[in-house]
Amino acid sequence: MGIVLGANRYGKAEVHLVRVDRGEAWHALSDVTVSVALSGDLTDVHLRGDNANVLTTDAQKNTVFAFAAEGVGQIEDFGLRLARHFVDSQPAIDRAVVRLVEQPWDRIDDAPHSFSRNGSCQRTAQVCYAGGTAEVVSGLTGLTLLNTTDSEFWGYVKDRYTTLAETTDRILATAVDARWRHTDASGDFGKSYVDVRRLLTAAFAETYSYSLQQTLYAMGERVLAEHPELAEIRLSLPNKHHFLVDLSPYGLDNPDAVYYAADRPYGLIEGTVTRDDAAPSMMDW
Amino acid sequence: MGIVLGANRYGKAEVHLVRVDRGEAWHALSDVTVSVALSGDLTDVHLRGDNANVLTTDAQKNTVFAFAAEGVGQIEDFGLRLARHFVDSQPAIDRAVVRLVEQPWDRIDDAPHSFSRNGSCQRTAQVCYAGGTAEVVSGLTGLTLLNTTDSEFWGYVKDRYTTLAETTDRILATAVDARWRHTDASGDFGKSYVDVRRLLTAAFAETYSYSLQQTLYAMGERVLAEHPELAEIRLSLPNKHHFLVDLSPYGLDNPDAVYYAADRPYGLIEGTVTRDDAAPSMMDW
Amino acid sequence: MGIVLGANRYGKAEVHLVRVDRGEAWHALSDVTVSVALSGDLTDVHLRGDNANVLTTDAQKNTVFAFAAEGVGQIEDFGLRLARHFVDSQPAIDRAVVRLVEQPWDRIDDAPHSFSRNGSCQRTAQVCYAGGTAEVVSGLTGLTLLNTTDSEFWGYVKDRYTTLAETTDRILATAVDARWRHTDASGDFGKSYVDVRRLLTAAFAETYSYSLQQTLYAMGERVLAEHPELAEIRLSLPNKHHFLVDLSPYGLDNPDAVYYAADRPYGLIEGTVTRDDAAPSMMDW
Amino acid sequence: MGIVLGANRYGKAEVHLVRVDRGEAWHALSDVTVSVALSGDLTDVHLRGDNANVLTTDAQKNTVFAFAAEGVGQIEDFGLRLARHFVDSQPAIDRAVVRLVEQPWDRIDDAPHSFSRNGSCQRTAQVCYAGGTAEVVSGLTGLTLLNTTDSEFWGYVKDRYTTLAETTDRILATAVDARWRHTDASGDFGKSYVDVRRLLTAAFAETYSYSLQQTLYAMGERVLAEHPELAEIRLSLPNKHHFLVDLSPYGLDNPDAVYYAADRPYGLIEGTVTRDDAAPSMMDW
Repeated sequence: MGIVLGANRYGKAEVHLVRVDRGEAWHALSDVTVSVALSGDLTDVHLRGDNANVLTTDAQKNTVFAFAAEGVGQIEDFGLRLARHFVDSQPAIDRAVVRLVEQPWDRIDDAPHSFSRNGSCQRTAQVCYAGGTAEVVSGLTGLTLLNTTDSEFWGYVKDRYTTLAETTDRILATAVDARWRHTDASGDFGKSYVDVRRLLTAAFAETYSYSLQQTLYAMGERVLAEHPELAEIRLSLPNKHHFLVDLSPYGLDNPDAVYYAADRPYGLIEGTVTRDDAAPSMMDW
Repeated sequence: MGIVLGANRYGKAEVHLVRVDRGEAWHALSDVTVSVALSGDLTDVHLRGDNANVLTTDAQKNTVFAFAAEGVGQIEDFGLRLARHFVDSQPAIDRAVVRLVEQPWDRIDDAPHSFSRNGSCQRTAQVCYAGGTAEVVSGLTGLTLLNTTDSEFWGYVKDRYTTLAETTDRILATAVDARWRHTDASGDFGKSYVDVRRLLTAAFAETYSYSLQQTLYAMGERVLAEHPELAEIRLSLPNKHHFLVDLSPYGLDNPDAVYYAADRPYGLIEGTVTRDDAAPSMMDW
Repeated sequence: MGIVLGANRYGKAEVHLVRVDRGEAWHALSDVTVSVALSGDLTDVHLRGDNANVLTTDAQKNTVFAFAAEGVGQIEDFGLRLARHFVDSQPAIDRAVVRLVEQPWDRIDDAPHSFSRNGSCQRTAQVCYAGGTAEVVSGLTGLTLLNTTDSEFWGYVKDRYTTLAETTDRILATAVDARWRHTDASGDFGKSYVDVRRLLTAAFAETYSYSLQQTLYAMGERVLAEHPELAEIRLSLPNKHHFLVDLSPYGLDNPDAVYYAADRPYGLIEGTVTRDDAAPSMMDW
Repeated sequence: MGIVLGANRYGKAEVHLVRVDRGEAWHALSDVTVSVALSGDLTDVHLRGDNANVLTTDAQKNTVFAFAAEGVGQIEDFGLRLARHFVDSQPAIDRAVVRLVEQPWDRIDDAPHSFSRNGSCQRTAQVCYAGGTAEVVSGLTGLTLLNTTDSEFWGYVKDRYTTLAETTDRILATAVDARWRHTDASGDFGKSYVDVRRLLTAAFAETYSYSLQQTLYAMGERVLAEHPELAEIRLSLPNKHHFLVDLSPYGLDNPDAVYYAADRPYGLIEGTVTRDDAAPSMMDW
């Protein structure tokens, strides 16, 4: 029962990069936050403080900015360029994971170089490169959706601690965190992002729901059905409770009109929709 | 030099109210967080713990929900109804300030009762009622804007501690917090909100800027020039610095393309644009 | 009704400075975040973008670091040195406000140069220098206190919307934000800080409370009674509600044992305790 | 390549429970936030919205409060009681994971029922129960430590993007997130928590460091060496950079005294120290 070093990784986190592409008339903006995690032959640094195999996190940060000089493009592609570079250029590093969060901006009307931050959600990516193989997971976070009706909840277990009243009409609200794994580490990631986001939103809006789990599966199934290039999708859906307020103490009716929006606690529904022949993933996500 | 009670107020803060208006086909959504602050004859509660003049903050919360039973409408009007109620119904209370933050939601395409949270900015209001008089301040917060060019910064003081290089082309970015005071406590607050937001955004985009102060004044002046019903506007503009990254150590050019977006420290520019005959305001805001 | 520039100020916000004082054997640590706001003859920069009177916020940041070379000491004194410098060295600037937040660190046992962040609360200061006069407000924020008993709440107004049950035993909890104004802009600020913090804590613990307002006044009065050098103290006390959980649906008693700690909404009690002959303050705080 | 349901779980998150134990003279306080995640035969709810196997998250929340009626004790034990209950009482549920975060409070001097929130760090636990077997992971988060010296960093890879200067004396600071897995799901968790925290702090302070990785390993090794009941420990250590400020432009020396504390980006060092014969863990953590 000796004591040994187990799994480990290190890197620079949250490098906030903004790139401006200046066309003749119109400018374009990329706003990306990049985090790098490298693994490999790092026993000596842990056991003896020998840094001979350590590419500094400062150099990783510099690399992110330097690579942006050639353009950013789709964040999945940018992450892959970085991950491949770290593994291919560093003999001691055999695995790189790069996580990216893209903040979208909207162009202000017809202003050629003015932008307004779009707070609807953020686009994410996580890529891995190891052993000559790459894997890409795309995603989005913070997409908050709400249906005012077409949601029931009944027929559940009634144990000693169950006091919740069944309902045939409730508000259903969630902040979607979705990540989808591509079968291949190449493709038109920008196009698929726009479409997956559209499908997730549409499936949420169109599903007559008897549980948030059902809505989750419907969202994931819709995406996989339309996107054969995706192996699986994982969804994390907080159930953002809206409680109908009892106004009867004041002699008032409340015909499904006035709600209290609670912060905590909240339900948390997490699930994967996958192809039955999907290969295992090569990273945690 | 006796010790006495000075200015004081109390109330319920951050009551998160959601109201659904269910039409035949289309639903509408109001998402408002309300904070109440009451002042008046409250010496006994402070000095002796005598609560005879205290309307509980719990009752204030209940009032917010109960009043929403009749509809919410524009947040300024909803706040005024609440403020008047507290002062008019409570003999000991002579002043009520109500602050409101409205979270906008977008309708999802042609779905009649599905919504997506709009994160571009939040609408705010602060209203006061005292002595038979009301005052309304409208506002917005979190509107993040960025110009990729048309911003210079030079000609400033050079003291011992000045090392900043002058520039004739920089990124200018800010998160607008704006509040504007209405001359009268009535009007079409929804319509003016939409237009003030449009004017602030347009003035930011269209002003060729030699300083963020100049942009601030241009934004405020534009609003007052177009809205005679407003007495003054106050703007708080953080200067969200974007630093051009020096890529020369790696032998790379950086022709105003790659920037590092810093979190802290940041510049903070605060200013008021007002009419020279504006009456004084009756509250802090 | 011309449109004119009103009140304005600008400066660098949230400069995060850490200073190490390296003694022979023991090191000491100062961790201070500094924000500067300057006012004066700034019309030209707002109206015409003429920066001739503008000391850049970058230079302000540099000044903070440069002044720390001579030591930081008590944050009130450090703020005063900065405020005086900006006004005295800049002909166009006639008023400087400096706000400071100090993060305390604890020494790790008998380790001479190792520290652990103390999260109990943060020390604050806000100083102003204008017209040859200085003013100092000291404070603390985030000091979260809780009494498990000795708190009653009854005898309040019962209006149409009051449903809260009276109680003769409840949890009373708050996060103290306190600021106290010194009569003179000099003194042993470190010593008074320690003592004021002690008095606020003791008064909270020792006051048998019939309302949070009563506790607030008792806290403020205790401080002024013991500190003749203070002109007034302002307290902002959120009432962090702890609701006794009804366990009777499961056939269980709950003899004041199990509580739900709510985040929002919360009560907010704000009040000033002052000397009746206190001179007016020269700044907003 | 059919589309199927993959891994999934659901539960109530962030139930904020406070329990008061009222002795004759002295009161004690437990402040715990509990999150539950259940897995099992949940295909029907995902595919058809059939809730027959669903124990509502509302009932899970009620259970947390109801179980607290019998006392909370060590959070690991409380979590185990809950996890066992959910699996044993629900035929459809075969696996429960409970995560707990305990907020410590300090007694105020000799006040028998007054407390002050201790912000130094939070205690955490994650327990799993499945297949008649339980597993316990204890931890802490937010323990922020800083050494002002005894930290060097040199001898690292110099690639094209490396510009960092080597140093033989720097500030080393981190916010420790540590989790340690117990070999058995029983024991004196409170006692081991106190000791592990002490060892982590001491190892950080006492290790002369050539890299944060080396410090990480020393911290983990120290814990495993002293605690034979632990199978492994995982550490996540952000490298909170403190940059020495260059004061030479103002003609000032800076002999390792004045630093700028940066927020982002930061290094992130993650590693496991384990026994070489540790059985695999039965959950993700």
